Amino acid sequence: MNADIRREFPILNQTVNGHPLVYLDSAASSQKPIRVIEAVKRYYETDNANVHRGVHTLGSRATDAYEGAREKVRAFLNAREAEEIIFLRGTTTGLNLVASSYARANLQKGDEIVLTPMEHHSNLVPWQMAAKATGATLKFIPLQDDGTISLTDVEATITPRTKIVAMTYVSNVLGVVNPVRETAEIAHRNGAVMVVDGAQSTPHMKVDVQALGCDFYAFSGHKMCGPTGIGALYGRRELLERMEPVEFGGEMIDFVGLYESTFKDIPYRFEGGTPIIAGAVGLAAAIDFLTEIGMDVIDAHDRKLAAYAVDVLSGIEGITIYGPGKGQPRTGLVTFNLADVHAHDVATVVDQEGIAIRAGHHCCQPLMKLLNVNATARASFYLYNDEQDIDRLAAALRHTTNFFAGLV
Amino acid sequence: MNADIRREFPILNQTVNGHPLVYLDSAASSQKPIRVIEAVKRYYETDNANVHRGVHTLGSRATDAYEGAREKVRAFLNAREAEEIIFLRGTTTGLNLVASSYARANLQKGDEIVLTPMEHHSNLVPWQMAAKATGATLKFIPLQDDGTISLTDVEATITPRTKIVAMTYVSNVLGVVNPVRETAEIAHRNGAVMVVDGAQSTPHMKVDVQALGCDFYAFSGHKMCGPTGIGALYGRRELLERMEPVEFGGEMIDFVGLYESTFKDIPYRFEGGTPIIAGAVGLAAAIDFLTEIGMDVIDAHDRKLAAYAVDVLSGIEGITIYGPGKGQPRTGLVTFNLADVHAHDVATVVDQEGIAIRAGHHCCQPLMKLLNVNATARASFYLYNDEQDIDRLAAALRHTTNFFAGLV
Repeated sequence: MNADIRREFPILNQTVNGHPLVYLDSAASSQKPIRVIEAVKRYYETDNANVHRGVHTLGSRATDAYEGAREKVRAFLNAREAEEIIFLRGTTTGLNLVASSYARANLQKGDEIVLTPMEHHSNLVPWQMAAKATGATLKFIPLQDDGTISLTDVEATITPRTKIVAMTYVSNVLGVVNPVRETAEIAHRNGAVMVVDGAQSTPHMKVDVQALGCDFYAFSGHKMCGPTGIGALYGRRELLERMEPVEFGGEMIDFVGLYESTFKDIPYRFEGGTPIIAGAVGLAAAIDFLTEIGMDVIDAHDRKLAAYAVDVLSGIEGITIYGPGKGQPRTGLVTFNLADVHAHDVATVVDQEGIAIRAGHHCCQPLMKLLNVNATARASFYLYNDEQDIDRLAAALRHTTNFFAGLV
Repeated sequence: MNADIRREFPILNQTVNGHPLVYLDSAASSQKPIRVIEAVKRYYETDNANVHRGVHTLGSRATDAYEGAREKVRAFLNAREAEEIIFLRGTTTGLNLVASSYARANLQKGDEIVLTPMEHHSNLVPWQMAAKATGATLKFIPLQDDGTISLTDVEATITPRTKIVAMTYVSNVLGVVNPVRETAEIAHRNGAVMVVDGAQSTPHMKVDVQALGCDFYAFSGHKMCGPTGIGALYGRRELLERMEPVEFGGEMIDFVGLYESTFKDIPYRFEGGTPIIAGAVGLAAAIDFLTEIGMDVIDAHDRKLAAYAVDVLSGIEGITIYGPGKGQPRTGLVTFNLADVHAHDVATVVDQEGIAIRAGHHCCQPLMKLLNVNATARASFYLYNDEQDIDRLAAALRHTTNFFAGLV
């Protein structure tokens, strides 16, 4: 499918350092197809106005576009109602909203928040702060050697004192898919709510928040072909309705006196200030784009590339690949190190051949510690990548190894 | 200037309900010139990647674009250092950050927060919540009959117990320009910090945060020709450095352990998660656009239109215009009601002639109460408007009056 799909992404049609660009950093931020870029442009050229407040034609059109985008997100996640979808800046803001509002109102001393050690900082530090504020304690489901977690450990870690389980659906370092559905069942059986970091899953697989049984689910548009600065939080109606807003002003308000105010119903009470209107429009276009291709097709494609990458890169001398081994399930990314070469140097050298990969701790310092490294390199794949991209990466990594060997 | 400038705004070249569009709702959200729309498009087509984390070429270009935008904002506001500029979703988020972080750490029972009754909900409700959380009390500088505040009243309201003075620079309902510089002096003399809501001033006049002496200044991009979903908070370095972040995750973090974390320096500690990169790029393009025309030119133009509107609309039977009287200074907006016609009906009827004005409480319910109304109509002007637009509005308002008179 990829020659056709690649044509939809103008940015990929360029040379970097004299080589055709190979973009292998979609887990950090994906590229945008023409139709998403054009949807944002068209919104500004034809319909732009503030929403909800206007009785004029542009205001109505903008409101329809914005609320239409909310319905698109609802359908994409299979949420029950559009009111359960809150637009906000991205995954980080969504997880922080749950940790600031829901968690602080519902936790007390002795309560437990259960996490995994593979969480992105955005699904770890907000819980550290909530624990500090409420006297709750953090507990971690242990990581197995292959980077997965076992349901036995999940059962053993979650107790009736657990009030919140927060887990990433897909690890941005290991590429493993966590057993969210099963964990949600165990959480619910113990009276806890299930919070899911969907940053790395939403772009790559069909997500059904009802089938998963999650109570909150956050994701970002920019990792799934949408604009930067837009994302959404799904929350079950009965939980959202009991949550206090954390940001105040603009149209989230019902009655305002000089000294007291009351707030609107969901989702508006969580969307203070002028919303991210064009962002929502772009996200809706991204959802259309991905849906037309098919999330199942994208999922299979990304996994196939990851498996191919594990195969091909395993042959490189001195490479360590983290996470699931050859033949084990893994989503579209491969994290690795070359012996004796710092990950940043690896990324810098392959960039000279036009290949964009990431290097660093990937906002997962505790996981880096468990892996016994300071940093890793990461190649991540999306619908516009193909086997040739991975062959180019493998060749560049061989050049890197040779280059640094030559320096010794 | 306007024929040329109007051509820069594709959206204005359309008919609405069979009439050429007259857009008089820029105080809610401005339209975007081609070059802003194109800057966002070009970013996605050539440079898009995540920032700060990458060592590859696109990542460096995206980081340069994002940090270049920060420097643009610094220069535009004449802040001392780029680190004093925090990118966030908009004015509401900026004011909430100060109220959640600075205010809650620095207020205690008996302290006072001084506001005016003309504040937008976004510069009122966050302070109500901060007062509730800390035991501080809210005090209001009284409003005079013409909608201005007097420095005598400012002197009388601010006391040594005042810790925060929060004031809008320009009222989104009255069009008055508040004496921010003089108020900041009085605030500082009493040991208080000065927080300025710049949502309505930044698009229309030259702002110099150092000359104004404000400690915090928040504004939104979408009201000043920039994209939706991006804005900035200026804060004096020594205050920002003492503030705790309120959103956690991603690159705002220095060290993260399983149970404890430390945070980066300003401005990054306040920018958790993937930033609003394309938004910042678009905002930078908007600043270039406005600066080339000249903020002084825009200011004079908008004031001239407002004066013309007050003149022309005053002649309409049964109209009440709020705020400064004929000949008094007023920025680019006019708020009014027609006798016996609800503001929403006014807006609906003029929309039939292709004229976009706003109706409602404009997120200023306490001010509406002082004005003894539930709602008003508002026409707001920007650099793409001209006298003919106001003539069209006046004609449509006469039709409205006649129409409703005919119904009686």
